[in-house]
Amino acid sequence: MSIVTIERKVLEKNDEIAHQNRQFLSEREILTLNIVSSPGTGKTSILERTLEQLYGRLKVVVIEGDVQTDLDAQRVARYNVPVVQIITHGACHLEAKLVQDALHKMDLTGAEVLIIENVGNLVCPANYDLGESMKVVVLGTTEGDDKPLKYPAMFRNAAVLLINKTDLLPYVDCDLGILRANALQINPSLRIFEMSCKTNAGIAEWCDWLRLNVRARSKGTDRA
Amino acid sequence: MSIVTIERKVLEKNDEIAHQNRQFLSEREILTLNIVSSPGTGKTSILERTLEQLYGRLKVVVIEGDVQTDLDAQRVARYNVPVVQIITHGACHLEAKLVQDALHKMDLTGAEVLIIENVGNLVCPANYDLGESMKVVVLGTTEGDDKPLKYPAMFRNAAVLLINKTDLLPYVDCDLGILRANALQINPSLRIFEMSCKTNAGIAEWCDWLRLNVRARSKGTDRA
Repeated sequence: MSIVTIERKVLEKNDEIAHQNRQFLSEREILTLNIVSSPGTGKTSILERTLEQLYGRLKVVVIEGDVQTDLDAQRVARYNVPVVQIITHGACHLEAKLVQDALHKMDLTGAEVLIIENVGNLVCPANYDLGESMKVVVLGTTEGDDKPLKYPAMFRNAAVLLINKTDLLPYVDCDLGILRANALQINPSLRIFEMSCKTNAGIAEWCDWLRLNVRARSKGTDRA
Repeated sequence: MSIVTIERKVLEKNDEIAHQNRQFLSEREILTLNIVSSPGTGKTSILERTLEQLYGRLKVVVIEGDVQTDLDAQRVARYNVPVVQIITHGACHLEAKLVQDALHKMDLTGAEVLIIENVGNLVCPANYDLGESMKVVVLGTTEGDDKPLKYPAMFRNAAVLLINKTDLLPYVDCDLGILRANALQINPSLRIFEMSCKTNAGIAEWCDWLRLNVRARSKGTDRA
Protein backbone atom coordinates (compact mmCIF):
# COMPACT_ATOMS: atom_id res chain seq x y z
CA MET A 1 0.00 0.00 0.00
CA SER A 2 1.61 3.22 -1.12
CA ILE A 3 1.63 6.47 0.82
CA VAL A 4 -0.24 8.23 -1.96
CA THR A 5 -3.10 5.75 -1.55
CA ILE A 6 -3.18 6.39 2.17
CA GLU A 7 -3.26 10.13 1.61
CA ARG A 8 -6.10 9.78 -0.87
CA LYS A 9 -8.06 7.70 1.65
CA VAL A 10 -7.46 10.24 4.41
CA LEU A 11 -8.79 12.98 2.13
CA GLU A 12 -11.77 10.87 1.02
CA LYS A 13 -12.71 10.14 4.62
CA ASN A 14 -12.33 13.85 5.43
CA ASP A 15 -14.52 14.85 2.47
CA GLU A 16 -17.21 12.42 3.62
CA ILE A 17 -17.39 14.00 7.09
CA ALA A 18 -17.15 17.49 5.58
CA HIS A 19 -20.20 16.60 3.51
CA GLN A 20 -22.07 15.63 6.71
CA ASN A 21 -21.00 18.90 8.36
CA ARG A 22 -22.17 20.90 5.34
CA GLN A 23 -25.57 19.18 5.44
CA PHE A 24 -25.87 19.70 9.22
CA LEU A 25 -25.03 23.41 8.94
CA SER A 26 -27.13 23.94 5.84
CA GLU A 27 -30.24 22.47 7.53
CA ARG A 28 -29.76 25.06 10.26
CA GLU A 29 -29.14 27.85 7.68
CA ILE A 30 -25.79 28.67 9.27
CA LEU A 31 -23.35 30.48 6.98
CA THR A 32 -19.95 28.95 7.73
CA LEU A 33 -16.61 30.64 7.09
CA ASN A 34 -13.31 28.75 7.19
CA ILE A 35 -10.73 31.48 7.82
CA VAL A 36 -7.20 30.62 6.71
CA SER A 37 -3.88 32.48 6.59
CA SER A 38 -0.25 32.42 7.69
CA PRO A 39 0.43 32.80 11.41
CA GLY A 40 0.20 36.41 12.57
CA THR A 41 -1.77 37.78 9.62
CA GLY A 42 -4.54 38.91 11.94
CA LYS A 43 -7.27 36.25 11.69
CA THR A 44 -8.20 36.67 15.36
CA SER A 45 -8.09 40.47 15.17
CA ILE A 46 -10.43 40.42 12.15
CA LEU A 47 -12.70 38.06 14.06
CA GLU A 48 -12.75 40.48 17.02
CA ARG A 49 -13.57 43.49 14.80
CA THR A 50 -16.22 41.44 12.99
CA LEU A 51 -17.86 40.39 16.28
CA GLU A 52 -17.95 44.03 17.41
CA GLN A 53 -19.50 45.14 14.13
CA LEU A 54 -22.09 42.37 14.03
CA TYR A 55 -23.05 42.66 17.72
CA GLY A 56 -26.85 42.73 18.00
CA ARG A 57 -27.21 42.20 14.24
CA LEU A 58 -26.20 38.61 13.62
CA LYS A 59 -25.74 35.68 15.99
CA VAL A 60 -22.22 34.39 15.52
CA VAL A 61 -20.59 31.27 16.97
CA VAL A 62 -16.89 30.49 16.74
CA ILE A 63 -14.56 27.50 16.50
CA GLU A 64 -10.90 28.30 17.18
CA GLY A 65 -8.20 26.03 15.77
CA ASP A 66 -4.66 26.19 17.12
CA VAL A 67 -1.59 23.98 17.21
CA GLN A 68 -1.19 24.86 20.87
CA THR A 69 -2.75 27.15 23.56
CA ASP A 70 -6.29 28.54 23.89
CA LEU A 71 -5.11 32.16 23.72
CA ASP A 72 -7.37 32.89 20.74
CA ALA A 73 -10.50 31.39 22.35
CA GLN A 74 -9.80 33.56 25.42
CA ARG A 75 -9.69 36.66 23.19
CA VAL A 76 -12.93 35.72 21.40
CA ALA A 77 -14.79 34.77 24.60
CA ARG A 78 -14.57 38.41 25.72
CA TYR A 79 -17.14 39.22 23.03
CA ASN A 80 -19.73 37.00 24.69
CA VAL A 81 -20.14 34.54 21.83
CA PRO A 82 -20.14 30.74 22.09
CA VAL A 83 -16.62 29.52 21.29
CA VAL A 84 -15.00 26.09 21.21
CA GLN A 85 -11.21 25.76 21.07
CA ILE A 86 -9.70 22.88 19.12
CA ILE A 87 -6.02 22.26 19.93
CA THR A 88 -4.42 20.10 17.24
CA HIS A 89 -1.32 19.27 19.34
CA GLY A 90 1.11 19.73 16.47
CA ALA A 91 -1.13 18.99 13.49
CA CYS A 92 -0.89 21.63 10.78
CA HIS A 93 -4.58 21.99 9.82
CA LEU A 94 -8.11 21.37 11.06
CA GLU A 95 -9.96 18.31 9.78
CA ALA A 96 -13.70 17.83 9.29
CA LYS A 97 -13.92 15.30 12.15
CA LEU A 98 -12.54 17.81 14.66
CA VAL A 99 -15.10 20.36 13.51
CA GLN A 100 -17.88 17.76 13.71
CA ASP A 101 -16.93 16.98 17.31
CA ALA A 102 -16.87 20.69 18.11
CA LEU A 103 -20.31 21.25 16.53
CA HIS A 104 -21.81 18.59 18.78
CA LYS A 105 -20.45 20.43 21.83
CA MET A 106 -21.93 23.81 20.87
CA ASP A 107 -25.30 25.40 21.48
CA LEU A 108 -26.26 26.43 17.96
CA THR A 109 -29.72 27.74 18.83
CA GLY A 110 -30.37 30.78 16.67
CA ALA A 111 -26.86 30.78 15.22
CA GLU A 112 -26.66 32.48 11.82
CA VAL A 113 -22.92 32.50 11.21
CA LEU A 114 -20.21 30.03 12.24
CA ILE A 115 -16.67 31.32 11.94
CA ILE A 116 -13.95 28.67 12.02
CA GLU A 117 -10.47 30.08 12.54
CA ASN A 118 -8.08 27.52 11.11
CA VAL A 119 -4.48 26.86 12.20
CA GLY A 120 -2.05 29.51 10.90
CA ASN A 121 -0.75 27.87 7.76
CA LEU A 122 -1.03 29.05 4.15
CA VAL A 123 -0.40 25.59 2.68
CA CYS A 124 -2.01 22.56 4.33
CA PRO A 125 -5.54 23.79 5.22
CA ALA A 126 -6.14 24.40 1.48
CA ASN A 127 -6.76 20.70 0.91
CA TYR A 128 -9.06 19.99 3.86
CA ASP A 129 -12.74 20.74 3.38
CA LEU A 130 -14.41 21.28 6.77
CA GLY A 131 -17.95 21.59 5.42
CA GLU A 132 -17.75 25.40 5.24
CA SER A 133 -19.85 27.61 2.96
CA MET A 134 -16.65 29.30 1.85
CA LYS A 135 -12.95 29.63 2.60
CA VAL A 136 -11.82 33.15 3.47
CA VAL A 137 -8.09 33.67 2.99
CA VAL A 138 -6.40 36.55 4.83
CA LEU A 139 -3.15 38.16 3.70
CA GLY A 140 -1.29 40.97 5.46
CA THR A 141 0.30 43.81 3.49
CA THR A 142 3.41 42.97 5.52
CA GLU A 143 3.67 39.60 3.76
CA GLY A 144 4.37 41.10 0.33
CA ASP A 145 2.41 41.13 -2.92
CA ASP A 146 3.82 37.91 -4.41
CA LYS A 147 2.16 35.44 -2.02
CA PRO A 148 -0.83 34.42 -4.22
CA LEU A 149 1.64 33.20 -6.87
CA LYS A 150 3.81 31.36 -4.33
CA TYR A 151 0.95 29.68 -2.43
CA PRO A 152 -1.66 29.31 -5.19
CA ALA A 153 -3.81 26.45 -3.83
CA MET A 154 -5.20 28.50 -0.97
CA PHE A 155 -6.17 31.40 -3.23
CA ARG A 156 -7.66 29.04 -5.81
CA ASN A 157 -9.87 27.34 -3.19
CA ALA A 158 -11.02 30.52 -1.43
CA ALA A 159 -14.10 32.60 -2.28
CA VAL A 160 -12.92 35.72 -0.44
CA LEU A 161 -9.58 37.44 0.12
CA LEU A 162 -9.22 39.84 3.03
CA ILE A 163 -6.16 42.09 2.69
CA ASN A 164 -5.36 43.12 6.25
CA LYS A 165 -2.95 45.67 7.78
CA THR A 166 -3.56 48.37 5.16
CA ASP A 167 -2.48 50.89 7.84
CA LEU A 168 1.10 49.61 7.39
CA LEU A 169 1.17 50.24 3.61
CA PRO A 170 3.34 53.39 3.93
CA TYR A 171 6.03 51.35 5.69
CA VAL A 172 6.18 48.10 3.71
CA ASP A 173 7.03 46.99 0.17
CA CYS A 174 3.58 45.91 -0.95
CA ASP A 175 1.81 47.22 -4.04
CA LEU A 176 -1.94 46.64 -3.60
CA GLY A 177 -2.49 46.76 -7.37
CA ILE A 178 0.06 44.01 -7.94
CA LEU A 179 -1.29 41.99 -5.00
CA ARG A 180 -4.84 42.17 -6.39
CA ALA A 181 -3.67 41.28 -9.90
CA ASN A 182 -1.67 38.30 -8.62
CA ALA A 183 -4.64 37.05 -6.59
CA LEU A 184 -7.07 37.44 -9.50
CA GLN A 185 -4.62 35.73 -11.85
CA ILE A 186 -4.88 32.63 -9.64
CA ASN A 187 -8.63 32.98 -9.00
CA PRO A 188 -10.54 35.50 -11.13
CA SER A 189 -13.72 35.13 -9.06
CA LEU A 190 -12.11 36.06 -5.70
CA ARG A 191 -14.07 38.72 -3.81
CA ILE A 192 -11.47 41.08 -2.29
CA PHE A 193 -11.82 43.36 0.73
CA GLU A 194 -9.10 45.65 2.11
CA MET A 195 -9.07 46.38 5.82
CA SER A 196 -7.15 47.43 8.89
CA CYS A 197 -7.97 46.09 12.35
CA LYS A 198 -5.97 49.00 13.77
CA THR A 199 -8.02 51.81 12.19
CA ASN A 200 -11.19 49.74 11.54
CA ALA A 201 -11.07 50.82 7.88
CA GLY A 202 -12.92 48.37 5.64
CA ILE A 203 -14.44 46.32 8.48
CA ALA A 204 -17.96 47.71 7.91
CA GLU A 205 -17.90 46.88 4.18
CA TRP A 206 -16.82 43.31 4.92
CA CYS A 207 -19.53 42.88 7.57
CA ASP A 208 -22.22 44.39 5.32
CA TRP A 209 -21.30 41.84 2.69
CA LEU A 210 -21.51 39.05 5.29
CA ARG A 211 -24.99 40.19 6.37
CA LEU A 212 -26.08 40.29 2.72
CA ASN A 213 -24.90 36.69 2.37
CA VAL A 214 -26.76 35.57 5.45
CA ARG A 215 -29.96 37.19 4.16
CA ALA A 216 -29.47 35.63 0.69
CA ARG A 217 -28.87 32.28 2.34
CA SER A 218 -32.01 32.33 4.45
CA LYS A 219 -33.94 33.13 1.25
CA GLY A 220 -32.35 30.11 -0.38
CA THR A 221 -30.50 32.14 -3.02
CA ASP A 222 -26.83 32.08 -3.88
CA ARG A 223 -24.31 34.30 -2.17
CA ALA A 224 -23.97 37.85 -3.45
CA MET B 1 -1.27 -0.81 8.49
CA SER B 2 -2.26 2.36 10.26
CA ILE B 3 -1.61 5.89 9.08
CA VAL B 4 0.53 6.58 12.12
CA THR B 5 2.83 3.70 11.10
CA ILE B 6 3.11 5.11 7.60
CA GLU B 7 3.95 8.55 8.97
CA ARG B 8 6.61 7.09 11.23
CA LYS B 9 8.16 5.26 8.28
CA VAL B 10 8.16 8.42 6.16
CA LEU B 11 9.96 10.26 8.95
CA GLU B 12 12.41 7.40 9.51
CA LYS B 13 13.29 7.31 5.81
CA ASN B 14 13.68 11.09 5.87
CA ASP B 15 15.96 10.93 8.92
CA GLU B 16 18.12 8.32 7.20
CA ILE B 17 18.70 10.56 4.17
CA ALA B 18 19.14 13.62 6.42
CA HIS B 19 21.90 11.68 8.18
CA GLN B 20 23.59 11.09 4.80
CA ASN B 21 23.28 14.79 3.92
CA ARG B 22 24.75 15.77 7.29
CA GLN B 23 27.72 13.47 6.74
CA PHE B 24 28.22 14.74 3.16
CA LEU B 25 28.14 18.38 4.29
CA SER B 26 30.23 17.78 7.37
CA GLU B 27 33.01 16.11 5.34
CA ARG B 28 33.15 19.30 3.24
CA GLU B 29 33.05 21.50 6.38
CA ILE B 30 29.97 23.33 5.10
CA LEU B 31 27.89 25.05 7.78
CA THR B 32 24.27 24.45 6.78
CA LEU B 33 21.33 26.60 7.86
CA ASN B 34 17.71 25.49 7.41
CA ILE B 35 15.77 28.77 7.47
CA VAL B 36 12.12 28.42 8.42
CA SER B 37 9.23 30.83 9.02
CA SER B 38 5.70 31.78 8.03
CA PRO B 39 5.21 33.09 4.50
CA GLY B 40 6.20 36.74 4.15
CA THR B 41 8.34 36.98 7.28
CA GLY B 42 11.35 38.02 5.21
CA LYS B 43 13.47 34.86 4.80
CA THR B 44 14.55 35.88 1.30
CA SER B 45 15.21 39.49 2.33
CA ILE B 46 17.40 38.29 5.20
CA LEU B 47 19.19 36.00 2.77
CA GLU B 48 19.82 38.95 0.44
CA ARG B 49 21.17 41.17 3.23
CA THR B 50 23.31 38.26 4.50
CA LEU B 51 24.78 37.66 1.03
CA GLU B 52 25.63 41.37 0.72
CA GLN B 53 27.29 41.38 4.12
CA LEU B 54 29.27 38.18 3.55
CA TYR B 55 30.37 39.07 0.00
CA GLY B 56 34.10 38.44 -0.35
CA ARG B 57 34.26 37.04 3.19
CA LEU B 58 32.52 33.68 3.03
CA LYS B 59 31.54 31.50 0.09
CA VAL B 60 27.80 30.88 0.34
CA VAL B 61 25.62 28.57 -1.73
CA VAL B 62 21.82 28.51 -1.60
CA ILE B 63 18.92 26.09 -1.97
CA GLU B 64 15.52 27.75 -2.38
CA GLY B 65 12.38 25.83 -1.43
CA ASP B 66 8.97 27.00 -2.65
CA VAL B 67 5.53 25.54 -3.15
CA GLN B 68 5.39 27.27 -6.52
CA THR B 69 7.46 29.72 -8.67
CA ASP B 70 11.22 30.39 -8.79
CA LEU B 71 10.80 34.05 -7.79
CA ASP B 72 13.09 33.62 -4.76
CA ALA B 73 15.87 31.92 -6.73
CA GLN B 74 15.72 34.81 -9.22
CA ARG B 75 16.19 37.28 -6.36
CA VAL B 76 19.12 35.34 -4.90
CA ALA B 77 20.82 34.76 -8.28
CA ARG B 78 21.40 38.53 -8.56
CA TYR B 79 23.99 38.17 -5.81
CA ASN B 80 26.13 35.90 -7.98
CA VAL B 81 25.94 32.85 -5.74
CA PRO B 82 25.17 29.29 -6.83
CA VAL B 83 21.46 28.66 -6.23
CA VAL B 84 19.18 25.70 -6.89
CA GLN B 85 15.40 26.13 -6.74
CA ILE B 86 13.27 23.27 -5.43
CA ILE B 87 9.57 23.60 -6.29
CA THR B 88 7.50 21.26 -4.12
CA HIS B 89 4.34 21.57 -6.27
CA GLY B 90 2.00 21.88 -3.31
CA ALA B 91 3.96 20.06 -0.61
CA CYS B 92 4.19 22.03 2.62
CA HIS B 93 7.86 21.40 3.55
CA LEU B 94 11.22 20.35 2.14
CA GLU B 95 12.37 16.78 2.67
CA ALA B 96 15.92 15.44 2.96
CA LYS B 97 15.69 13.63 -0.40
CA LEU B 98 14.91 16.85 -2.28
CA VAL B 99 17.91 18.51 -0.63
CA GLN B 100 20.11 15.50 -1.46
CA ASP B 101 19.10 15.74 -5.13
CA ALA B 102 19.81 19.49 -5.10
CA LEU B 103 23.25 18.96 -3.50
CA HIS B 104 24.23 16.62 -6.31
CA LYS B 105 23.36 19.30 -8.84
CA MET B 106 25.48 22.02 -7.19
CA ASP B 107 29.10 22.98 -7.52
CA LEU B 108 30.18 23.01 -3.87
CA THR B 109 33.86 23.75 -4.52
CA GLY B 110 35.08 26.05 -1.78
CA ALA B 111 31.59 26.43 -0.26
CA GLU B 112 31.66 27.34 3.44
CA VAL B 113 28.00 28.00 4.11
CA LEU B 114 24.87 26.42 2.62
CA ILE B 115 21.65 28.30 3.27
CA ILE B 116 18.45 26.34 2.67
CA GLU B 117 15.35 28.52 2.54
CA ASN B 118 12.45 26.25 3.42
CA VAL B 119 8.82 26.60 2.31
CA GLY B 120 6.96 29.34 4.21
CA ASN B 121 5.26 27.33 6.94
CA LEU B 122 5.69 27.61 10.70
CA VAL B 123 4.33 24.11 11.40
CA CYS B 124 5.32 21.25 9.08
CA PRO B 125 9.04 21.90 8.42
CA ALA B 126 9.68 21.54 12.18
CA ASN B 127 9.52 17.75 11.90
CA TYR B 128 11.68 17.27 8.82
CA ASP B 129 15.43 17.12 9.37
CA LEU B 130 17.26 18.04 6.15
CA GLY B 131 20.76 17.32 7.46
CA GLU B 132 21.34 20.95 8.48
CA SER B 133 23.78 22.13 11.14
CA MET B 134 20.96 24.18 12.67
CA LYS B 135 17.44 25.39 12.09
CA VAL B 136 17.07 29.18 12.06
CA VAL B 137 13.52 30.33 12.71
CA VAL B 138 12.50 33.82 11.59
CA LEU B 139 9.62 35.77 13.12
CA GLY B 140 8.43 39.22 12.08
CA THR B 141 7.41 41.82 14.66
CA THR B 142 4.22 42.09 12.54
CA GLU B 143 3.25 38.55 13.54
CA GLY B 144 2.79 39.36 17.22
CA ASP B 145 4.64 38.28 20.36
CA ASP B 146 2.55 35.14 21.11
CA LYS B 147 3.74 32.99 18.21
CA PRO B 148 6.40 30.92 20.07
CA LEU B 149 3.66 29.68 22.42
CA LYS B 150 1.24 28.93 19.60
CA TYR B 151 3.73 27.15 17.32
CA PRO B 152 6.15 25.67 19.86
CA ALA B 153 7.71 22.80 17.86
CA MET B 154 9.54 25.11 15.49
CA PHE B 155 11.02 27.18 18.32
CA ARG B 156 11.95 24.05 20.28
CA ASN B 157 13.83 22.58 17.31
CA ALA B 158 15.63 25.75 16.26
CA ALA B 159 19.05 26.93 17.49
CA VAL B 160 18.58 30.54 16.40
CA LEU B 161 15.67 32.99 16.31
CA LEU B 162 15.88 35.99 14.01
CA ILE B 163 13.35 38.68 14.90
CA ASN B 164 12.86 40.61 11.66
CA LYS B 165 11.06 43.87 10.80
CA THR B 166 12.14 45.75 13.94
CA ASP B 167 11.68 48.97 11.89
CA LEU B 168 7.90 48.37 12.13
CA LEU B 169 7.88 48.16 15.95
CA PRO B 170 6.40 51.68 16.38
CA TYR B 171 3.36 50.67 14.29
CA VAL B 172 2.52 47.15 15.51
CA ASP B 173 1.38 45.48 18.73
CA CYS B 174 4.51 43.51 19.51
CA ASP B 175 6.44 43.70 22.77
CA LEU B 176 10.00 42.50 22.13
CA GLY B 177 10.47 41.67 25.83
CA ILE B 178 7.40 39.43 25.82
CA LEU B 179 8.36 37.88 22.48
CA ARG B 180 11.84 37.04 23.80
CA ALA B 181 10.44 35.66 27.06
CA ASN B 182 7.90 33.49 25.19
CA ALA B 183 10.61 32.14 22.88
CA LEU B 184 12.99 31.38 25.74
CA GLN B 185 10.19 29.73 27.71
CA ILE B 186 9.87 27.20 24.85
CA ASN B 187 13.61 26.92 24.24
CA PRO B 188 15.97 28.45 26.84
CA SER B 189 19.04 27.93 24.64
CA LEU B 190 17.74 29.87 21.63
CA ARG B 191 20.25 32.43 20.33
CA ILE B 192 18.22 35.54 19.43
CA PHE B 193 19.09 38.32 16.97
CA GLU B 194 16.93 41.36 16.19
CA MET B 195 17.13 42.87 12.74
CA SER B 196 15.55 44.94 10.00
CA CYS B 197 16.16 44.25 6.33
CA LYS B 198 14.84 47.74 5.61
CA THR B 199 17.37 49.65 7.73
CA ASN B 200 20.04 46.90 7.83
CA ALA B 201 20.05 47.14 11.66
CA GLY B 202 21.32 43.93 13.25
CA ILE B 203 22.46 42.30 10.00
CA ALA B 204 26.17 42.78 10.77
CA GLU B 205 25.85 41.18 14.24
CA TRP B 206 24.10 38.15 12.76
CA CYS B 207 26.70 37.78 10.01
CA ASP B 208 29.60 38.17 12.48
CA TRP B 209 28.11 35.34 14.51
CA LEU B 210 27.80 33.22 11.36
CA ARG B 211 31.46 33.84 10.48
CA LEU B 212 32.47 32.90 14.02
CA ASN B 213 30.57 29.62 13.61
CA VAL B 214 32.24 28.85 10.30
CA ARG B 215 35.67 29.45 11.87
CA ALA B 216 34.78 27.30 14.89
CA ARG B 217 33.55 24.60 12.56
CA SER B 218 36.71 24.47 10.46
CA LYS B 219 38.67 24.13 13.72
CA GLY B 220 36.44 21.22 14.69
CA THR B 221 35.00 22.97 17.74
CA ASP B 222 31.38 23.48 18.64
CA ARG B 223 29.40 26.48 17.57
CA ALA B 224 29.79 29.69 19.55
